[in-house]
Amino acid sequence: MLKGHQTWVFPSKPVILSSAAVGGPFEAQGNLGDDFDILHEDLWLGQDSFEKAEKMLLQGACEKAIEKAGKKKEDMTFFISGDLMNQIISSSFTARTLGVPYLGIFGACSSSMEGLSLASLLIDSQGADYVVAAACSHNASAEKQFRYPTEYGSQKPPTAQWTVTGAGAAVLGKQGEGPKVTSATIGRVVDMGISDPFNMGAAMAPAAVDTIEAHFRDMNIDPSYYDLIATGDLGAVGHRIAGELLMKHGMKIPPEIFTDCGIIIYKKEQKVMAGGSGCGCSASVTYGHFLNRMRSGELKKILIVATGALMSPMSYQQKESIPCIAHAVSIEM
Amino acid sequence: MLKGHQTWVFPSKPVILSSAAVGGPFEAQGNLGDDFDILHEDLWLGQDSFEKAEKMLLQGACEKAIEKAGKKKEDMTFFISGDLMNQIISSSFTARTLGVPYLGIFGACSSSMEGLSLASLLIDSQGADYVVAAACSHNASAEKQFRYPTEYGSQKPPTAQWTVTGAGAAVLGKQGEGPKVTSATIGRVVDMGISDPFNMGAAMAPAAVDTIEAHFRDMNIDPSYYDLIATGDLGAVGHRIAGELLMKHGMKIPPEIFTDCGIIIYKKEQKVMAGGSGCGCSASVTYGHFLNRMRSGELKKILIVATGALMSPMSYQQKESIPCIAHAVSIEM
Repeated sequence: MLKGHQTWVFPSKPVILSSAAVGGPFEAQGNLGDDFDILHEDLWLGQDSFEKAEKMLLQGACEKAIEKAGKKKEDMTFFISGDLMNQIISSSFTARTLGVPYLGIFGACSSSMEGLSLASLLIDSQGADYVVAAACSHNASAEKQFRYPTEYGSQKPPTAQWTVTGAGAAVLGKQGEGPKVTSATIGRVVDMGISDPFNMGAAMAPAAVDTIEAHFRDMNIDPSYYDLIATGDLGAVGHRIAGELLMKHGMKIPPEIFTDCGIIIYKKEQKVMAGGSGCGCSASVTYGHFLNRMRSGELKKILIVATGALMSPMSYQQKESIPCIAHAVSIEM
Repeated sequence: MLKGHQTWVFPSKPVILSSAAVGGPFEAQGNLGDDFDILHEDLWLGQDSFEKAEKMLLQGACEKAIEKAGKKKEDMTFFISGDLMNQIISSSFTARTLGVPYLGIFGACSSSMEGLSLASLLIDSQGADYVVAAACSHNASAEKQFRYPTEYGSQKPPTAQWTVTGAGAAVLGKQGEGPKVTSATIGRVVDMGISDPFNMGAAMAPAAVDTIEAHFRDMNIDPSYYDLIATGDLGAVGHRIAGELLMKHGMKIPPEIFTDCGIIIYKKEQKVMAGGSGCGCSASVTYGHFLNRMRSGELKKILIVATGALMSPMSYQQKESIPCIAHAVSIEM
């Protein structure tokens, strides 16, 4: 592997052999419904708790991705996954079902690209033959844990975001057909003092900017290298701030190639305030929609910048501001 | 890197340039008091919450380890850390203070060796110059989150364990003096159906056995290769079960080289039921006591098998059993 400060460059170009996205009923009604492999009509997925439903989303995405790769779970060398639940139980219980050696990660909503970065590193360094990288979130389990049970019907400000009920998984290998991971930039924690959990996009924007700048500096390329640069879940508020911050720092990303998973996943008429969020947002949009557009030849080079807000309800109660992070992964056909 | 199933072999032998252990007042009274770099007399570390105190433990261990390596935090390429707090806030807030690109991990009490495995992989694959790997726990913050606030004075069965107030950190580099990481075995989730959070040692023992067997199978060596094999925090109950299970499977580890961080950290007269536990247990005992014994020439080859119980209070309330995991790292002089 080659290294430029905080960026890993993968000369062997690990291949995303397959990927899968799973969503809930609200995601089915969104812009990207057709890009999901499995859409559940039941928010409970037939389970008796939202936490168990979330685990089923993740398990479904992993099993589907493995099946699409023409492999069995026994073929997988490692499973790398993260989610928002306390002690990442969705990931760990899925790891129990898969029975594959497991690395649990936590980067809040940046977990999707933290996992893809590490999976690519493992393949590139010949530490694994096949790796499943995945992440998930569930609207109702996240609301219950971070804010209020959805049954309370509590009101939200327009800066708030809607946690995606979804999971995304990818199977990586050394060789084969498919989009290839060419580099990954690991972010630093950036905290600009925002402490409002209903304005995560604004809190995360500076972290996204820090990682985007690091990526272009380390790789010595400029934004025109990519057909598409997508932040994870900044939403409308955070994405606008990120664009302004980049401009201020002298980096102009043309608006037609600069987007955000949280903005595109839902339709305008869906009442999601500033947009989608959650580990399942960038995971399902990347492993569904974006990779489908790459496979169809529409996109050649993309950079996914997954953003994460690393606070907990406890740190918020203790009046801490929100430390944020972003990890960027470059995927090329 | 070389690979044997779930084991990574590091031909470049990443060096542990320095390490540091930080403990609380109860740890100061234990068997290994002399092996801590910093011992706090105040369980609160001058903070106004136990969560903030835990973060100070971790930050202190990282800063001490970096200082002992003769480096500055700016020299560190990556920081890899995990802890037991919801959304691993101790690690993420420490990452904010350090300002180093950060990979958050979660493997419960196995986080210490998950971090050391990944740090070694990063160095070996030339993805980093210097990596800080760390983990921590705090007795009172863990009791509050997983069981009851300590002020309640609730009673515990003899199988229960005592969460260590401690943190351990190591600085790894490509070359230099010090113990070297030679291989790492990443564990699978093993769940034998135990659901009693006051008997974690018994729940984790089969996971430790699974990883120990995988390590010796992958490396094609036998236990006599090591001067010492230490499980993370099985405690007296779990460690005895692990020994019996290994024996049943035809693997005899001589009792004089087979120990457990949770058993040795406290004195017999300290009322810790079955022993110590928590991410800070294997982290502080390994990065303090064991590495000190290696540096003094007393130990040449050790295998640390950190064990983790991957449940959450929520999964327990929902009547799930406890999925467990163990990661093993081989360190040699």
